[in-house]
Amino acid sequence: MGIRRKGAAMVGSMVERLPFWGQLTSDEQTLVAERSSLRSFDAGQIIGSSGNSCTGIVFIIEGDIRVSLLSEEGKEVTLFRVGCGECCVTTASCVIEQISFDTMVVTARRSSLLVVPASVCAQLARDNVYVKAFMLQVEVKRYSQVVCVLQQMLFKRLDQRVASYVLEHCRAAGTAEVAVTQDELARDINSAREAVTRALRRLAQDGLIEIRRGRIIVRDVDGLARLV
Amino acid sequence: MGIRRKGAAMVGSMVERLPFWGQLTSDEQTLVAERSSLRSFDAGQIIGSSGNSCTGIVFIIEGDIRVSLLSEEGKEVTLFRVGCGECCVTTASCVIEQISFDTMVVTARRSSLLVVPASVCAQLARDNVYVKAFMLQVEVKRYSQVVCVLQQMLFKRLDQRVASYVLEHCRAAGTAEVAVTQDELARDINSAREAVTRALRRLAQDGLIEIRRGRIIVRDVDGLARLV
Repeated sequence: MGIRRKGAAMVGSMVERLPFWGQLTSDEQTLVAERSSLRSFDAGQIIGSSGNSCTGIVFIIEGDIRVSLLSEEGKEVTLFRVGCGECCVTTASCVIEQISFDTMVVTARRSSLLVVPASVCAQLARDNVYVKAFMLQVEVKRYSQVVCVLQQMLFKRLDQRVASYVLEHCRAAGTAEVAVTQDELARDINSAREAVTRALRRLAQDGLIEIRRGRIIVRDVDGLARLV
Repeated sequence: MGIRRKGAAMVGSMVERLPFWGQLTSDEQTLVAERSSLRSFDAGQIIGSSGNSCTGIVFIIEGDIRVSLLSEEGKEVTLFRVGCGECCVTTASCVIEQISFDTMVVTARRSSLLVVPASVCAQLARDNVYVKAFMLQVEVKRYSQVVCVLQQMLFKRLDQRVASYVLEHCRAAGTAEVAVTQDELARDINSAREAVTRALRRLAQDGLIEIRRGRIIVRDVDGLARLV
């Protein structure tokens, strides 16, 4: 079996994991299987950015990606991350006429992605109202996340934002520990690394968390939750 | 003809102006016509707020409404306004499971609204994928508007935000003049009245605008556009 056929076989098994796979007609399934591709990225690679690209729907097989706003001066604001098993539809925003802003999409770590090209997404969104509704639903979920970012940035103190972040990630992972560097954390909550380090130290002094290299361990969930 | 029948007749003619009317089955049209109601509000009245209500889809017949975030301390951030002929779906956010944030919805001026109750919206969203897609599309459009607010607040100087606001409203109205008080403008762009007054004065000194009571007249569109 040649490399090409192996690739095609792998795509074939991956496309079935797309959340909207079951809502496709068999012709649409064939189209998606034939036109989608598997792509690998190192950490920090740009998948799509400001108006210059419309990648299509990106399904995260492994790793995760970060979607952010970029100012003209290069100031960056993280809107959300998209993780394993989730779809990034923002990368197909050219297909969704209601979206008029530009984002930068970067791999947060080494990632393996299944890409359904924009032209295929456009066809599906036009012909299959369920796929269209799926794409819109994903975007509305991101809307909700972005409003939370806005609320945190405008209304919350830094220690509260750090505490929220740690609690949320523990809940999502079902553990008492978050694997994140202080750089990453600062980036994710849109603050400066030095300020985040000070906030973490204060939380550690209060016995709420323990700081290790590349991870944060929660020592007092209730205490942390009272802060938020 | 009694008042009640007159009311019902008016609702009957108004429901046909709902953007999703044509996508309803005749049974659904009957349901919407029978259950919707016309309501009048003075300026500054609360239509819905923080988790305590789920009004349903609000269609603006006259006037406009403002949707904002409220901090625990009462600090308010305007997300967007919804004007004449548009639907506010945020007021039916209980129907859209992807929305998890709370907003405050207030009439910006004397308004006349057609309200399709939440229970009817829930039924339509469940049974009619086109109505569901319509609701999601409206929310994705709001998402785009909220990201623009975020970009303006984070990346732009106050004079640029004021200039953007004035230009945008002139374009939307197709005139060289915006009917807005300085209080309203400050509220809409999330700044302090005093700061907005200073910014407006500077723009007037530069010959870009002229300030009148309750309105702003654009004197140099290109100059204003260069600022943004």
